Amino acid sequence: MNETAHSDHQHPAVHLATGGAGETQRLEAFSDGVFAIAITLLVLEIHAPTPAETHEVGLWTALASRWPSYLAYVLSFISIGIMWANHHTIFQYIRRTNRTFLLLNVVFLMFISFVPYPTAVLAEYLPDPAFRKVGALFYSLTLIGIAINYNLVWRYGVGSGRLLAHNADPVAVATISRRYLVGPAMYALAAVLALFNAWASLAIHGLLLLFFMFSERTPIVHRRRRDTTGPLT
Amino acid sequence: MNETAHSDHQHPAVHLATGGAGETQRLEAFSDGVFAIAITLLVLEIHAPTPAETHEVGLWTALASRWPSYLAYVLSFISIGIMWANHHTIFQYIRRTNRTFLLLNVVFLMFISFVPYPTAVLAEYLPDPAFRKVGALFYSLTLIGIAINYNLVWRYGVGSGRLLAHNADPVAVATISRRYLVGPAMYALAAVLALFNAWASLAIHGLLLLFFMFSERTPIVHRRRRDTTGPLT
Amino acid sequence: MNETAHSDHQHPAVHLATGGAGETQRLEAFSDGVFAIAITLLVLEIHAPTPAETHEVGLWTALASRWPSYLAYVLSFISIGIMWANHHTIFQYIRRTNRTFLLLNVVFLMFISFVPYPTAVLAEYLPDPAFRKVGALFYSLTLIGIAINYNLVWRYGVGSGRLLAHNADPVAVATISRRYLVGPAMYALAAVLALFNAWASLAIHGLLLLFFMFSERTPIVHRRRRDTTGPLT
Amino acid sequence: MNETAHSDHQHPAVHLATGGAGETQRLEAFSDGVFAIAITLLVLEIHAPTPAETHEVGLWTALASRWPSYLAYVLSFISIGIMWANHHTIFQYIRRTNRTFLLLNVVFLMFISFVPYPTAVLAEYLPDPAFRKVGALFYSLTLIGIAINYNLVWRYGVGSGRLLAHNADPVAVATISRRYLVGPAMYALAAVLALFNAWASLAIHGLLLLFFMFSERTPIVHRRRRDTTGPLT
Repeated sequence: MNETAHSDHQHPAVHLATGGAGETQRLEAFSDGVFAIAITLLVLEIHAPTPAETHEVGLWTALASRWPSYLAYVLSFISIGIMWANHHTIFQYIRRTNRTFLLLNVVFLMFISFVPYPTAVLAEYLPDPAFRKVGALFYSLTLIGIAINYNLVWRYGVGSGRLLAHNADPVAVATISRRYLVGPAMYALAAVLALFNAWASLAIHGLLLLFFMFSERTPIVHRRRRDTTGPLT
Repeated sequence: MNETAHSDHQHPAVHLATGGAGETQRLEAFSDGVFAIAITLLVLEIHAPTPAETHEVGLWTALASRWPSYLAYVLSFISIGIMWANHHTIFQYIRRTNRTFLLLNVVFLMFISFVPYPTAVLAEYLPDPAFRKVGALFYSLTLIGIAINYNLVWRYGVGSGRLLAHNADPVAVATISRRYLVGPAMYALAAVLALFNAWASLAIHGLLLLFFMFSERTPIVHRRRRDTTGPLT
Repeated sequence: MNETAHSDHQHPAVHLATGGAGETQRLEAFSDGVFAIAITLLVLEIHAPTPAETHEVGLWTALASRWPSYLAYVLSFISIGIMWANHHTIFQYIRRTNRTFLLLNVVFLMFISFVPYPTAVLAEYLPDPAFRKVGALFYSLTLIGIAINYNLVWRYGVGSGRLLAHNADPVAVATISRRYLVGPAMYALAAVLALFNAWASLAIHGLLLLFFMFSERTPIVHRRRRDTTGPLT
Repeated sequence: MNETAHSDHQHPAVHLATGGAGETQRLEAFSDGVFAIAITLLVLEIHAPTPAETHEVGLWTALASRWPSYLAYVLSFISIGIMWANHHTIFQYIRRTNRTFLLLNVVFLMFISFVPYPTAVLAEYLPDPAFRKVGALFYSLTLIGIAINYNLVWRYGVGSGRLLAHNADPVAVATISRRYLVGPAMYALAAVLALFNAWASLAIHGLLLLFFMFSERTPIVHRRRRDTTGPLT
């Protein structure tokens, strides 16, 4: 489209809607939908105690015995929540899309949507010493997949400034690019640790949540206005 | 970002989209998604009568025997619906976000998403005198968790005017802050009552729905325009 | 809020976002979410043939034997789809909300979300002559509930012009009000017919879909611009 | 509505919101919701290995034995993802809606929502030589249904320029119309191949994904601004 030819003499509000938020808006909304659904489906993996079980041990004990499910629920919920918040950050810099970027996002979301399955596996086998390492490894591998695809989405988008807002601060972009390498590295560590000790592996997952929670609190972002994007592809 | 430096000479429509609704927009949309999904998943906990059961007692009786599921469905649906409406109210005052606020919201949503599980437990054990108290207690504890996290989200947002719209009426904010304490207190009462009588506990839940339904009908809100927010973080 | 005091000297784009679509926007989005989820969950009630069943009769026959599930799926999907489209229409006239209106909507959505359950019951018992009438009756009763609540939402919103856009055409509103009475009446007929013949009852449901599909094609709507709403509550 | 009478002397921003994105906005949001949910529900068809199974063969082997589920998940996820991206494209040309267009979309979405079911059937019977052809055929028939309905939505929308943006490039529209015929034709080929060899049929599905991924990379689109739509229906 020949957006730029018209852009000078037009009203900023028009700009905003077509060139600014508009370009990535439906992708963001779709991604948010997938995040929200995947995160909410996690609860379906927690099953109410059966009457047989309850009459044997009591309801309170039966509810308490589901602690691996609660633990896995909290871990996956906060992990997906943080990924959602980070995905949010991506679109403060990337204000345009193209076909390849859309498809990289779809593949990324395919890994996000997959999370309820390894979460169920982890919850099921965490109490079983014979299988909990495999459960933690499978879980870690899924998160490696997410982290790698997340990096692909980001790096494709900012690579050679391809889809970057023209006014994006290159220093902030470079800082974020470095930070995002922490994810795959740490999840790889969690996967390796799972071969030896499931709890150590899960501890890394927990630490990583804390890292992600606090790592972006110091505002390195000097991003300028959304409405001053340049020509669109 | 250096939003403020530009804000004086810019058009209000631009203001609106970037500084007003824009800042919290994706958080609101994501939260709405989680609310909508959690509320709709409730129906999956109601199972169609099996042929074996139906051939024994008839379909009408089998359907009627699921009254605890219908009761729990209505209770949880309206509870989540009211929390959605209240969450809506929060963002009439809080027009900005930061990392901590996002994460408090994710934890709050984690409790909302959890609701289908205690709802299923309540429905399953409500007809059973031996376990219905535990079911009602577990349900009440979940709602205490929601109410406390709801207060954390609100209080963090308005605390020292942190994320408050600059024109928010301090009297309205203080009134809302007081009102929101009713939730945790009443759910705590429901939890205590559940130790003695499940029905009394559920009656409190029902009364609380009525309270929330009607408590905000008298408009204490003198909120001004959304487009006159101050500098962004 | 004292919206009106400012409205004369402000830019129409601001008007639009705060007074026009803005007021009901989050309610519409939330409702759309619930509609979209309820409609998509319908497929979870269709279960893949089990290996045991398939090895006995073959996969093609096993798939074909699920025709009641497919029929119920199509019926409920299009019914919810049409209700979504009609709900859409409501917000072309009603441009403001209040607490009661929000809650009436929540109750309406509670009935929409319930649909997968009677759909599963209908699909399960449609092939069984002993129970199919009860299945069709239960299904019809659910749709009566939806239609009545839909009317409550509409009538509360337009009653004494409460939440109506100030420029809404009273003739169009009155026409719509009359039309919406067809729903409860026809579903009541379907319920009564179900007592005698399940197929006749389902035929009414099918006819009603056709009626709703084509009844609004003649444009009676002379609705004016969305941005000229009057003072907000 | 008499939109056109006013359109000349009004501000483009108003135009944009009411006549441009506004008209199809809620339909797009609803469709995105259904796409996002259908795509995310796919994971529910993958079941965690049971303890019995795991204790017999080990967790790693049990997880690996679910490869048909993973394959079907990836195939369906990317297929729905591409359809979502293409549906996105439709609304770059079609900027208005009417009742019939809404209903065609609902029927299209009914096929999209159905996908988790044939996906589960395919995953269940892919390892079984006796039934895998039927599984692949049923899957292909579903995708034919999607492709045909997709064409109906597009062709109704652009037919006699009915809902087309007035400035849409007729050459681009004609090119897209031709391209969209590839879908039904290829899925029909996949269905025919399924009668002989399930793997050959799935290979066509995979090739089609590659085709759709890369076919729209050469920008044939010379679409102009969204805000210059003509009179609305």
